[in-house]
Amino acid sequence: MANASTIRAGAEGPAQAGQYESTRIEGGITAPLGFTSAALHCGIKAKAGVLDLTVVSAAQPVAAAGLFTLNLAQAAPVLISKRNLEQTAGMARAIVINSGCANACTGTQGYADAETMAREVASALGCSPEDILVASTGVIGVNLNMGKVTPGIRTAVSQLSRGKGADVARAIMTTDPFPKEDAVRVETAAGTFSIGGTAKGSGMIEPNMATMIGMLTTDAQVSPALLRRALEESARDTFNAITVDGECSTNDTLFAMASGASGIVIDEESYPALLDGLLTVSRRLAVDIVRGGEGATKVITVTVEDARSRDDARQVARTIANSPLVKTAVHGADPNWGRIVAASGRAGVQFDVSKATVHVGGVLLFENGLPHDDAAPLAAEHMKGADIDIHVHLGTGGGAAATIWTCDLSAEYVRINGEYRT
Amino acid sequence: MANASTIRAGAEGPAQAGQYESTRIEGGITAPLGFTSAALHCGIKAKAGVLDLTVVSAAQPVAAAGLFTLNLAQAAPVLISKRNLEQTAGMARAIVINSGCANACTGTQGYADAETMAREVASALGCSPEDILVASTGVIGVNLNMGKVTPGIRTAVSQLSRGKGADVARAIMTTDPFPKEDAVRVETAAGTFSIGGTAKGSGMIEPNMATMIGMLTTDAQVSPALLRRALEESARDTFNAITVDGECSTNDTLFAMASGASGIVIDEESYPALLDGLLTVSRRLAVDIVRGGEGATKVITVTVEDARSRDDARQVARTIANSPLVKTAVHGADPNWGRIVAASGRAGVQFDVSKATVHVGGVLLFENGLPHDDAAPLAAEHMKGADIDIHVHLGTGGGAAATIWTCDLSAEYVRINGEYRT
Repeated sequence: MANASTIRAGAEGPAQAGQYESTRIEGGITAPLGFTSAALHCGIKAKAGVLDLTVVSAAQPVAAAGLFTLNLAQAAPVLISKRNLEQTAGMARAIVINSGCANACTGTQGYADAETMAREVASALGCSPEDILVASTGVIGVNLNMGKVTPGIRTAVSQLSRGKGADVARAIMTTDPFPKEDAVRVETAAGTFSIGGTAKGSGMIEPNMATMIGMLTTDAQVSPALLRRALEESARDTFNAITVDGECSTNDTLFAMASGASGIVIDEESYPALLDGLLTVSRRLAVDIVRGGEGATKVITVTVEDARSRDDARQVARTIANSPLVKTAVHGADPNWGRIVAASGRAGVQFDVSKATVHVGGVLLFENGLPHDDAAPLAAEHMKGADIDIHVHLGTGGGAAATIWTCDLSAEYVRINGEYRT
Repeated sequence: MANASTIRAGAEGPAQAGQYESTRIEGGITAPLGFTSAALHCGIKAKAGVLDLTVVSAAQPVAAAGLFTLNLAQAAPVLISKRNLEQTAGMARAIVINSGCANACTGTQGYADAETMAREVASALGCSPEDILVASTGVIGVNLNMGKVTPGIRTAVSQLSRGKGADVARAIMTTDPFPKEDAVRVETAAGTFSIGGTAKGSGMIEPNMATMIGMLTTDAQVSPALLRRALEESARDTFNAITVDGECSTNDTLFAMASGASGIVIDEESYPALLDGLLTVSRRLAVDIVRGGEGATKVITVTVEDARSRDDARQVARTIANSPLVKTAVHGADPNWGRIVAASGRAGVQFDVSKATVHVGGVLLFENGLPHDDAAPLAAEHMKGADIDIHVHLGTGGGAAATIWTCDLSAEYVRINGEYRT
């Protein structure tokens, strides 16, 4: 991660980010005050020394929120974490995450194991098991080796300290090509607070891998209800605005915890500052998940403008972003406006194709129902880069917009996911 | 095509096919009485001798029906054919189809060219332009060379004859790996009638290619309304039950014409015999489109049973069939039940995962929320073949079922669609 640099949050994004000055800082998930962490190798992963277990803890139960996969097949830790957040009405002391085993499709034993993980952390910290959030990522259909996890948890809790956020980012990786973390300091009239985060993404090299896990921390003081609202709003245009292959796993989980240790209180008036910071960190992590997508060589930013509604804009952008024909065209640096028009036209959203325009890399390729073929070479130059910009203006007069990030579809994706054999 | 052999129509399919004895016959689109055809090279395709224009004609205007792409971006011939069928209330004399140029995204000139195609056929046949149906397939965003198409149409009409169905099947190909045609004789208490068909599919090797075209003919005597109903019903479980990559083109078109030349009248009572025959021919053509899909090495039959409704079953089957992770797993002959469960669970249909089962090649891989890992090697053996069977039982007690056919996702698909440059 680069040294601190002033950034304007998400000027390209549809959400109203970038209204507050935020400064990128070091420290990742433990950059905000009031959080400690530990990460170690407990033995779930075969290779010695590879981190596979992490605990992130506050000093006492604090406001917490979670967003979980909408898949009907939900892993045991997802069920336990949802239940715990309900029982505490949005409070948590710590998060425990293991990688290497998703504890999904593991039946009643899996459920018991996830409960044991929470209970062991609680016992070591001296709190109630309901105050613990649990996540797992890795191979599904395989039970956790609790003979390794349980002592691992005890050791981890005994090692909790500040300044180890980078280890947390590595401990949640499965086959991600690089660790993902970010942190910002947000300036408000009342003072500054920090937001940190880490995430792991799509690296399903092994079969049956369950995918995204994200964690966000802040030292702002926020009510559970406001934290949940901020998490939902920020995720909508970040973690929920990315797609690698349109898949949604059994384990997808995003947690947020607010320690309050900065003393800065977030209320309705200062809420936009919290949202702004969450958007900044989440967008960075989300786009990094795409950049680290399986076989990805390019990040594609699909922006749809002038739709009748934001949902319409998102629907068209998502259809383009998940189109295998668009993704392969981008992989081949082919400014194939026809595939973009065809994907837009089958998205289930009403618009007049003859009023729509398509730009790639700022180059106008389609207008008035007709191509601008002379512009194709310029757009092809843009597409040789690593960051591809697709812009569709629907011309409905509605003015609504949305952005979805995705990656190209390469033969490497097929090799990773198909040419591996169980 | 093999010699005539008695087949039972679609015993595997969800539609009530197979209740009538049908015999596979030679002749394709002109097997039914009352149809003539011609096909030639007019010069749209560069390579001399490669067929690129075809006309299929009845002796006078007869009952006709069409199903068209739901894409908002509709090619000029789609717009003209829809309008003509409305103006004639479901009658047509002939169908003209060119390959090599889709006449899509071609503006007002494209619309005028499609009208000229209809007018030229009508003029040569001595009927009204509204009696002509037009389809085009090939590159989009490029205008037709009418200097070649117009004389081609005149020559084609002058050469109309019986027994040339195989040439029609070749003339509509773009980059399909093989021509697709089929015909059956259907036995009813009142006598026999025939159904013929041809189709072209997904071979978008060139950029901006617009895809599926299908034609069905019968010598049964059917009202336009009943023909349209039969076409819709049969397409639902055949042409609309296949997916190569979830894409839907600007030109997708399926026509049907009924000459009445057999003298067998189809009414409400004998309607099931017509539907049965259409299902048989359409299923064969549709599965052949999948078999000839870009980069396809395997045909995957995804059957979902015991859903609450047929729409639910179709939605789950379609989600599995379009899942890149399932399609790559099949490509690698990996019996990856986890990806099938995860795709089912994100389909947006309610069911209890713990009551669902997954079979691959008849081998039970998932039950009671848990895998049967010991069965994986047997399923892997099945997956080495060219026809893969995925069966998901949702366990809702609803009893509704649907089948979707798709192909595997190979590195060759990416190469075809991505590594080509304009």
